[in-house]
Amino acid sequence: MRLITLLTDFSEKDGYAGIMKGVMLSIAPHARIVDLSHDISPQNVLEAALLLGRSAAYFPDGTIHVAVVDPGVGTHRRGIAARLGEQYFVGPDNGLMTLLYRNASSQHNEVKVVHLDQPKYWLTQVSRTFHGRDIFAPVAAHLANGVELDSLGKTVTDPVLLPIPSAECTQSGWQGEVIHRDAFGNLATNIREEDLPGDADIRVHIKGKHDLPVKLTFGEQKPGELVAVIDSFGYLMIGVVNGSAAQLLGADVGEKVEVVCSPKAAGSQV
Amino acid sequence: MRLITLLTDFSEKDGYAGIMKGVMLSIAPHARIVDLSHDISPQNVLEAALLLGRSAAYFPDGTIHVAVVDPGVGTHRRGIAARLGEQYFVGPDNGLMTLLYRNASSQHNEVKVVHLDQPKYWLTQVSRTFHGRDIFAPVAAHLANGVELDSLGKTVTDPVLLPIPSAECTQSGWQGEVIHRDAFGNLATNIREEDLPGDADIRVHIKGKHDLPVKLTFGEQKPGELVAVIDSFGYLMIGVVNGSAAQLLGADVGEKVEVVCSPKAAGSQV
Amino acid sequence: MRLITLLTDFSEKDGYAGIMKGVMLSIAPHARIVDLSHDISPQNVLEAALLLGRSAAYFPDGTIHVAVVDPGVGTHRRGIAARLGEQYFVGPDNGLMTLLYRNASSQHNEVKVVHLDQPKYWLTQVSRTFHGRDIFAPVAAHLANGVELDSLGKTVTDPVLLPIPSAECTQSGWQGEVIHRDAFGNLATNIREEDLPGDADIRVHIKGKHDLPVKLTFGEQKPGELVAVIDSFGYLMIGVVNGSAAQLLGADVGEKVEVVCSPKAAGSQV
Repeated sequence: MRLITLLTDFSEKDGYAGIMKGVMLSIAPHARIVDLSHDISPQNVLEAALLLGRSAAYFPDGTIHVAVVDPGVGTHRRGIAARLGEQYFVGPDNGLMTLLYRNASSQHNEVKVVHLDQPKYWLTQVSRTFHGRDIFAPVAAHLANGVELDSLGKTVTDPVLLPIPSAECTQSGWQGEVIHRDAFGNLATNIREEDLPGDADIRVHIKGKHDLPVKLTFGEQKPGELVAVIDSFGYLMIGVVNGSAAQLLGADVGEKVEVVCSPKAAGSQV
Repeated sequence: MRLITLLTDFSEKDGYAGIMKGVMLSIAPHARIVDLSHDISPQNVLEAALLLGRSAAYFPDGTIHVAVVDPGVGTHRRGIAARLGEQYFVGPDNGLMTLLYRNASSQHNEVKVVHLDQPKYWLTQVSRTFHGRDIFAPVAAHLANGVELDSLGKTVTDPVLLPIPSAECTQSGWQGEVIHRDAFGNLATNIREEDLPGDADIRVHIKGKHDLPVKLTFGEQKPGELVAVIDSFGYLMIGVVNGSAAQLLGADVGEKVEVVCSPKAAGSQV
Repeated sequence: MRLITLLTDFSEKDGYAGIMKGVMLSIAPHARIVDLSHDISPQNVLEAALLLGRSAAYFPDGTIHVAVVDPGVGTHRRGIAARLGEQYFVGPDNGLMTLLYRNASSQHNEVKVVHLDQPKYWLTQVSRTFHGRDIFAPVAAHLANGVELDSLGKTVTDPVLLPIPSAECTQSGWQGEVIHRDAFGNLATNIREEDLPGDADIRVHIKGKHDLPVKLTFGEQKPGELVAVIDSFGYLMIGVVNGSAAQLLGADVGEKVEVVCSPKAAGSQV
């Protein structure tokens, strides 16, 4: 029994994700399928790549992640499958697996990518607008059935990898930006907890006028108040207790965030 | 192990689809359940019938499709179950299975419909407003357990079938209409690829003022531009590259679409 | 094979529910997971408690309900697991299980609650903002694997239970309120069918100016008309045939509803 995850920008309205599940379960009846999200903003490859990057570690070895945010469907962009350490990726070669690839590489795990060029692992009829159904779903199902990655196509040595905006060290701390707004309106930045000095006073600046200390949890502030915390993926996040920081601040993905670190004042709380 | 699909206008907010799954898994613990959509427009039977029509072929033999878009619940409208070739339908007798029925009939597959009149296959208490939970979910689960269709009720020879708007042949081509707007804002028509002559110049007219050639794929136009393509279900579709044709055109389901075919000019690209 | 349900206010956009499934299936690969809803209004514990209360009875014995609407995450609020008759609850101790607890107690079923204080059943790293992933998902998976409730923590005798607004008997009938607005715009009240006299004329008043008889089903009125019926959970509900009562009335959860009962006029229809 193998686990397959699905990540798309299809929404759940039109049945497209359900159709992909029908295709997969026709080929691999015992596969387990988990929806990651079908509500990626249309054609937003980076948003999907970031979601996949923060999610994959919570799935067991052998999981096959199928991601279909595919503005280039039907053009010459390649379809790929990849083994990234102990997990797999199937989808268009447009950078969706960027973080899986980097994480596996940085941990010195084996990485292997193939170009899906073997139609015998696809549906018989392949459309020009829905490769999720016609190519990626059947390929993932065959992987779940034990087909070897090498059988699916020739090795690719130059997969598309996206530039992920990273925070930069400044004289006084870090300059980063919002890289994710969740449904609560929380704003996650690309500034990592491990980059923040443990023995300093840390202040977070956003929109020029807000100057926030970093708290341990939302519950330290009152409802409606802004709070900066480390989120559950290890990044600095700005939220509003029982509210939406995106709405309160009028801020979204791309908003600049500055962290200023200064020596702790004598006698300050540890 | 049998596959059951679910198609409703319940949304996922209130737990109604989850409750149906609880009922089904109480009776048939090994059934596999796949959501097709719970975001059908409220009471829009035709929208659900079209979605089911384009989805069913991608599911394996034996799949049981449960569809509950049911404005007549609690009235004298019948509940039905049907075998349509190698797949099954369970739901209200209001036309939801129209395309499954026609497809099976046109392929000379056996078609059999029964009126759900055997309360022993229902929940003990049957409400007047939620037959999805009280009748259709348990009936589907019993089918998944191997109960014979004939046991569920008396044969129906006059199931409700909806008139599906079909394209009409004109002197110069085809006159059709938009029958589906998906979450991307793509507008699918009821004009079939197989009805378009392969050796002619084809122009697509919508909203009086647009005159589009048929392209192979979205990628042949620039972002923001209108494009006419054959969609992944074999129908003429009008979209906008990385955008919404529904929004750009101010068009929705029901909008007229005209196709004009003329002999190819000498020397035109093949 | 054990069933786990999931109920959150995460939405499905950000993959948080999918991540919880990854965690659960890593620990209990054979568990079955059913989504109840991820669209609870943010931080609305009462809304989730009511949904869980009306849903649980439709799930089989042994089902484990994981509910994460958790405005107090990271503070001193406890995490709990409970056996409530033949079903289980896992989540924050903020009242989410109120109705499961009351239902089990009123049916004289055994009720047992423990404080989750055994980190060996959690993920190794526990964040301060996502206990759904780090504590509740793994605990539910261990329960599904057969771990005893007693192993998960010390007994709790004072779990948080919410006051659920209940209807009050008046001289002429009942005074209640809207406790749920579903996606159709139907308004469910807290006035129970069993509290309404079967042999009286019953009129329902809402917003001062509406005076509705109780009908058996929506189909007795015309499209667009208001109708009062008993809903599928046994409560008085106000709806609009093929429309939204919430919209037509400008009413929502909390709106007062009055029921006036008077002796049936001689010769009135039975």
